[in-house]
Amino acid sequence: MRDEAPEGAPRLGDMPPEEFRRYAHEAVDWVADFLANVETYPVFPSVRPGDVTSRIPPTPPASPEPMDALLDDFRSIIVPGMNHWNHPAFFGYFSVSASGPGIIGELLASALNVNAMVWRSAPAAAELEDVATDWLRQLLGLPDGFEGVINDTASSSTMYALAAAREATWPEAHAKGLFGLAPGRVYASEHAHSSVEKGVLTIGLGQDGYRTIETDETFAMNPVALENAIADDVRAGLRPCAIVATLGTTSTASMDPIGPIVEIARRHDVWLHVDGAYGGPAAMLPEAAPWFAGWEQADSIVVNPHKWLFTPIDCSVLFCRRPDVLRQAFSIVPEYLRSSEQAESRSLMDYGVSLGRRFRALKLWFVMRYFGQEGLVERLRDHLSMASSFADAVRAEDGWEVMAPVDLGLVTFRCTLGETPEDQDRINHEIMDAVNASGQAFLIHTVLNGRVVLRLAIGNINTTQSHVMATWALLKKIANDFR
Amino acid sequence: MRDEAPEGAPRLGDMPPEEFRRYAHEAVDWVADFLANVETYPVFPSVRPGDVTSRIPPTPPASPEPMDALLDDFRSIIVPGMNHWNHPAFFGYFSVSASGPGIIGELLASALNVNAMVWRSAPAAAELEDVATDWLRQLLGLPDGFEGVINDTASSSTMYALAAAREATWPEAHAKGLFGLAPGRVYASEHAHSSVEKGVLTIGLGQDGYRTIETDETFAMNPVALENAIADDVRAGLRPCAIVATLGTTSTASMDPIGPIVEIARRHDVWLHVDGAYGGPAAMLPEAAPWFAGWEQADSIVVNPHKWLFTPIDCSVLFCRRPDVLRQAFSIVPEYLRSSEQAESRSLMDYGVSLGRRFRALKLWFVMRYFGQEGLVERLRDHLSMASSFADAVRAEDGWEVMAPVDLGLVTFRCTLGETPEDQDRINHEIMDAVNASGQAFLIHTVLNGRVVLRLAIGNINTTQSHVMATWALLKKIANDFR
Repeated sequence: MRDEAPEGAPRLGDMPPEEFRRYAHEAVDWVADFLANVETYPVFPSVRPGDVTSRIPPTPPASPEPMDALLDDFRSIIVPGMNHWNHPAFFGYFSVSASGPGIIGELLASALNVNAMVWRSAPAAAELEDVATDWLRQLLGLPDGFEGVINDTASSSTMYALAAAREATWPEAHAKGLFGLAPGRVYASEHAHSSVEKGVLTIGLGQDGYRTIETDETFAMNPVALENAIADDVRAGLRPCAIVATLGTTSTASMDPIGPIVEIARRHDVWLHVDGAYGGPAAMLPEAAPWFAGWEQADSIVVNPHKWLFTPIDCSVLFCRRPDVLRQAFSIVPEYLRSSEQAESRSLMDYGVSLGRRFRALKLWFVMRYFGQEGLVERLRDHLSMASSFADAVRAEDGWEVMAPVDLGLVTFRCTLGETPEDQDRINHEIMDAVNASGQAFLIHTVLNGRVVLRLAIGNINTTQSHVMATWALLKKIANDFR
Repeated sequence: MRDEAPEGAPRLGDMPPEEFRRYAHEAVDWVADFLANVETYPVFPSVRPGDVTSRIPPTPPASPEPMDALLDDFRSIIVPGMNHWNHPAFFGYFSVSASGPGIIGELLASALNVNAMVWRSAPAAAELEDVATDWLRQLLGLPDGFEGVINDTASSSTMYALAAAREATWPEAHAKGLFGLAPGRVYASEHAHSSVEKGVLTIGLGQDGYRTIETDETFAMNPVALENAIADDVRAGLRPCAIVATLGTTSTASMDPIGPIVEIARRHDVWLHVDGAYGGPAAMLPEAAPWFAGWEQADSIVVNPHKWLFTPIDCSVLFCRRPDVLRQAFSIVPEYLRSSEQAESRSLMDYGVSLGRRFRALKLWFVMRYFGQEGLVERLRDHLSMASSFADAVRAEDGWEVMAPVDLGLVTFRCTLGETPEDQDRINHEIMDAVNASGQAFLIHTVLNGRVVLRLAIGNINTTQSHVMATWALLKKIANDFR
């Protein structure tokens, strides 16, 4: 250990282990208090852009600072400037959870600090990534043959899937690039996540390489429109490259009709990627089975345990039924990464862009074991039930309406006060801002059919009916000021 | 809190806070003991592919399991199957460090569990990413105007930089894709990291879109060869898209001559990306300044604090001097991510593929503050000095040779025993395997000029001269068996 440096000499090495022990315990106590008292924090802080920055020196310190100062600043500058995603009244974006077992898994993984790019670089981490993703596959009811790999985000997972689709569509592009080839297209509903378009741009197909398909009155993809779009494009000399079906869109959690989409994908021999980043975990519920029937025929599926499976950010699982194609898109093995175990083990680096790979499997494994299949199912079911009750309450109230079917944990709704549509939009924006300014709950908006709509996304593990109903009471109270 | 569920009813919600407190303290004690006693662990475990998996049930548990069981399995199955990157005698790949302040930063960030894709989604995390990357910019001596953003890995950072280069080279590709355009190329030395070729494939240029440039006897890019390659390609109708210069290659830590490369890039109006993922932190040392002179004229630079700046994995900083082009390559703002603060704050989601964004800035901020500029410089300098002493010892020993200049913390060397080159290769492989099997140190090999070479990468924060010299003694002892 470096503790016994001679007096006056610069001490090298890390923080001494006993100092680490003391401050890490202090940090754990802060976290435990935070988790116990999170409801005493405003969900959204009262800060404006630049407020946090103005409290931090513009230049780095020349000399070491004591850990006490760092923790003090964390508590006094960082925490009060934070939007609290781990608050049970956080209903914005998709509500997520850092559960206790997940946080403990992250702590242990950060100390091991391994990089599981190949088996040899971190044997237990590489194998646990196989095991944990296979467990998740089984929980989701997906058949053998889907290989899972953990990425940072669904945006990366979807981009990797699209790169595999490109490899399948234009095998010659692996050598020559897309230059000189007949152009092609990726199809997704007009409610698909922006990451699909970003993935299309990233892999070089351009904006013209992305065609959105109209949705029905439930905001789900219209398969007839998909079929027509593909047929039109084929007639025009375009190559269909991939279809992305979404199970749980971001605006309304709508579910694209997977059965008819699978048939279209097979008929045109097009890669089918399913974006179940948010909605995927619902496949664990028997009552949700109809929505997922057929997804086992997709070529790739992304499901994010860091969204609706209580795992701290980041943890996005890409399942692929044609892993050979995915690997072909990405596999390059330089000499310094060759090792004798490569025939007997997967090299996780071959499944995407990122070579470095945190030990994310540990937290996912802890979450699946601590809650168990039954515990996970109960919690998801509870979220569906809360969403359903909230929607019922909105429907029953004069001056409010629910804007989309409530299939999962997300309710889209709006206040109908206001003379003109523009007034209504403004009032809904103002209601949202007032809720967020209260610090008691956090919501975001979206736009449906050209009109501003509010979203209440239920997904935090500690959210209860009382949080949902208190938010509903707050919404109604604020709206009354506009009457 | 959910603790008081009626008896018999399923308990919903998270692990109760007091249970979290107990087990998180237990985990901290394990981590503190691990850090204090890491040298009692074998660096590389005595496991074969499948050993870890065989000790884990093949199916997930139906019912919840107690946290005790999880921690027991972590200690008895996972840890003994791990290659210990945080061991001071881990000299493989690039040696990295999860320092104490970094681990504590990760712990706090995982509990907050925020997603800093836009300012509104996590104000303090978004602003701290601005501040922390700007502090790092200053430490590295880069001028104002380089905007930093934190990605997971250098592979992602480099791919994003190449996507920006594509945007600058073929602005029309943003709409139309690369289809029908005249092909183009990215240039990097034959010792550049495999992530450059992977990035080229990912963005759709194909293998033909990547041209490697020969290196000189120090394994650094030959700028005359670069100039000739570009001139040849231009004559042949190819568009030069980007040059990637590496400061610290993976095989030998060679430093491409940045001054002449900058001139070539400017003359041909080609995007210059600098891969300083490993070597970049050395820019903090005044004595290393000559290697970096001119890098401030690059268009983009990647530096990984998770490699040689004591920050737990993952933390890769992409600096870009033309952020408008980078944003143009990636910016798509859907309605549900619009907010009124976008004019006053950066939206970090616009700088790459990943939308989700962990609060990685916290650990980087903690590391820079806890060690301070002077502390970081002293530690890097100590690593350089150890590498230099090890190389001197190898050079002084009969039957051994150093294979490349030792500029940073990496020494490439080999044992020269053996009748034929093939014998020598086999013997070096066997020496490496024996070192790794001993559990006392961990090395990997590379190939230089067709011959197997060993690498000793010094970068762990707790590595001392005694670890290095003990490994040298072990190497010599093992080699004696081949005499």
